[in-house]
Amino acid sequence: MKAEHINPFLTSAVEVFSTMLNCDLKRGAPTLNAAFQPAHEVSGIIGLSGKASGVVVVSVDREVAIGVTEKMLGERPDSLNADVMDAIGEITNMIAGRAKTGLAHLEMNLALPTVITGNDHVIRFGSLAKTISIPYSCAWGDLTVEVGLIEEDEAAAAAKKPMMAGV
Amino acid sequence: MKAEHINPFLTSAVEVFSTMLNCDLKRGAPTLNAAFQPAHEVSGIIGLSGKASGVVVVSVDREVAIGVTEKMLGERPDSLNADVMDAIGEITNMIAGRAKTGLAHLEMNLALPTVITGNDHVIRFGSLAKTISIPYSCAWGDLTVEVGLIEEDEAAAAAKKPMMAGV
Repeated sequence: MKAEHINPFLTSAVEVFSTMLNCDLKRGAPTLNAAFQPAHEVSGIIGLSGKASGVVVVSVDREVAIGVTEKMLGERPDSLNADVMDAIGEITNMIAGRAKTGLAHLEMNLALPTVITGNDHVIRFGSLAKTISIPYSCAWGDLTVEVGLIEEDEAAAAAKKPMMAGV
Repeated sequence: MKAEHINPFLTSAVEVFSTMLNCDLKRGAPTLNAAFQPAHEVSGIIGLSGKASGVVVVSVDREVAIGVTEKMLGERPDSLNADVMDAIGEITNMIAGRAKTGLAHLEMNLALPTVITGNDHVIRFGSLAKTISIPYSCAWGDLTVEVGLIEEDEAAAAAKKPMMAGV
């Protein structure tokens, strides 16, 4: 991923948590092209497509998921219920949407979010994608924003390669 | 979801399993707008966006994941390793891609696939999406193709709402 494509993702989560949830995120050191992605307990996933193809995963601790939902709904959920999953889907949508506005030249649209729960779930990006994993912490706990993107030139090159090569 | 938008998804998994894997899928009764989605052990997720926004989830038993990978790579994996996750990502990509060709008027592009593993993971679609869940069985075991889509008229209405960071 080019630096100018990474930057909008470095700031979007901080901005969304600050403006929507009045919550300060502290950013850790990003990792490029990490392999397997051990996730936190709740993960929102949303695709982007247009002149580039991408996916954004926002994976959060249980306590972050509860805190986000309490802030959005004004009531503390007592479990990882449908409200929590909807809240994390909405936050994922906002983080990807805000980053997208910084990548207007890629003319990407958002797909629909899905939200995964499960104690030990692992999320893997396709092996062609260049990924960045950005850890954050806040008063509620830890979260990670992971982004995979295949840019125009790479997509054209990848189309010429055999499918399962270079795993 | 309109019937003409459902039909390509009813046939795409059967066609991909038949042509790519020489495996016959038997289709069960589809369910509309199911709420929580208890998933099989391995799930491929891919977004679509354009004049409609969607997401396709292909969730498969462990034995289906192993069988698909063995067929694609010519070697049986001994665990749910990176090869298995890449194979399920590729199959998810193909199923969504084939359905997309039957929905050319929606001008959707594919986002990047991600693949989830985890014994008890649950996948939830955003509450705005109209969903269909289609169960299949084959010699290897069971799988489900789940599709969520927000169609043109709904997407148009959404586009008139102010966006968070204003494109």
